[in-house]
Amino acid sequence: MEKLNVGILLFDDVEVLDFAGPFEVFSRTRLTPGVASRRDEEAAPFRVFTVAKTGQIIHAIGNLHVKPHYSFSDAPRIDVLVVPGGWGSRQAMQDPEILSWVQRIARSAKYTSSVCTGALVLAQAGLLAGRRATTHWAAYDLLESLHAGVQVVRNARFVKDGIYSSGGVAAGIDMAFALVEDICGREVAEETAHYIEYARRQEM
Amino acid sequence: MEKLNVGILLFDDVEVLDFAGPFEVFSRTRLTPGVASRRDEEAAPFRVFTVAKTGQIIHAIGNLHVKPHYSFSDAPRIDVLVVPGGWGSRQAMQDPEILSWVQRIARSAKYTSSVCTGALVLAQAGLLAGRRATTHWAAYDLLESLHAGVQVVRNARFVKDGIYSSGGVAAGIDMAFALVEDICGREVAEETAHYIEYARRQEM
Repeated sequence: MEKLNVGILLFDDVEVLDFAGPFEVFSRTRLTPGVASRRDEEAAPFRVFTVAKTGQIIHAIGNLHVKPHYSFSDAPRIDVLVVPGGWGSRQAMQDPEILSWVQRIARSAKYTSSVCTGALVLAQAGLLAGRRATTHWAAYDLLESLHAGVQVVRNARFVKDGIYSSGGVAAGIDMAFALVEDICGREVAEETAHYIEYARRQEM
Repeated sequence: MEKLNVGILLFDDVEVLDFAGPFEVFSRTRLTPGVASRRDEEAAPFRVFTVAKTGQIIHAIGNLHVKPHYSFSDAPRIDVLVVPGGWGSRQAMQDPEILSWVQRIARSAKYTSSVCTGALVLAQAGLLAGRRATTHWAAYDLLESLHAGVQVVRNARFVKDGIYSSGGVAAGIDMAFALVEDICGREVAEETAHYIEYARRQEM
């Protein structure tokens, strides 16, 4: 299997677990079961990296400092796009540079996904029009109020409707596992969940 | 309530979710329920920061780049010490500078905790002697083989015996919530879990 590039968008005031959960899941997935394979890049189906507008250090919520691997101008091809949420999504969803980057990447990516209020960014970029999608429970009304043609699914852990969207924060881990399962099969997803001692929760 | 300082140790090849899970939990905890309080630092019972040997960028597993807030030489007082795991714990547990720092901090901290193979570091620092503790399932035997006087508890989500220790990776989120509950009460822990949409798992 050819490795897929997973690009995780970062911006100031991104929620830590929104990006760190999927980062953990994709970067620890191995096609070969067991513990030893986790040290082996050969058995890794994904190449995971973070991307931000510029290469400067991002201040996530709680003030965690993360240095993105790439800026918009030098990021490699992205096969799986992950747009996390957090307060910063309110800024991001009004940032024309971020919106047009997300549109451009989503056009060529095999999979596009959002965690938590990352759905607001996808909606503003016009990517959720005519689709069912979910977000953090505190943002259902806000997502609806954007009039972006989204059919907001309330109380879902995650929703798959062409685009993958998850509920708040920790739900992004379940969405990432759903992507792993759809791309690599159920056994690989379950093995990886066992490795990181995570009890998966299902779609609805 | 006076704010408690939560210091999370970082080192190269630390597991991302091992530190990001507890970082998320402690930094999003609020004493006032609801969504609005999450933006308010006044209602935050914890000040959360990362500490590493030097101030240089840490390369976590999967190559996430994190810039620690403090080095060993300039970190403020730590009330709650969190020692995460990952492959890097094998190096860390043999690093005299890290071991003596952990010993020194644990002496004055109100709470000392490990996530995953962070227990190996605490054990090597002599902090688990005579105590029950747990670690990642793949490291039970290794923890036992250190002959550090640890009574290894297998198949526990987390263990409290003076020091808090958790199972692998995602179990650190449950351990962090247990600390929040013991420090701030059950309601605050449950509210925060609801906010980050995490279904807590209990001690055994």
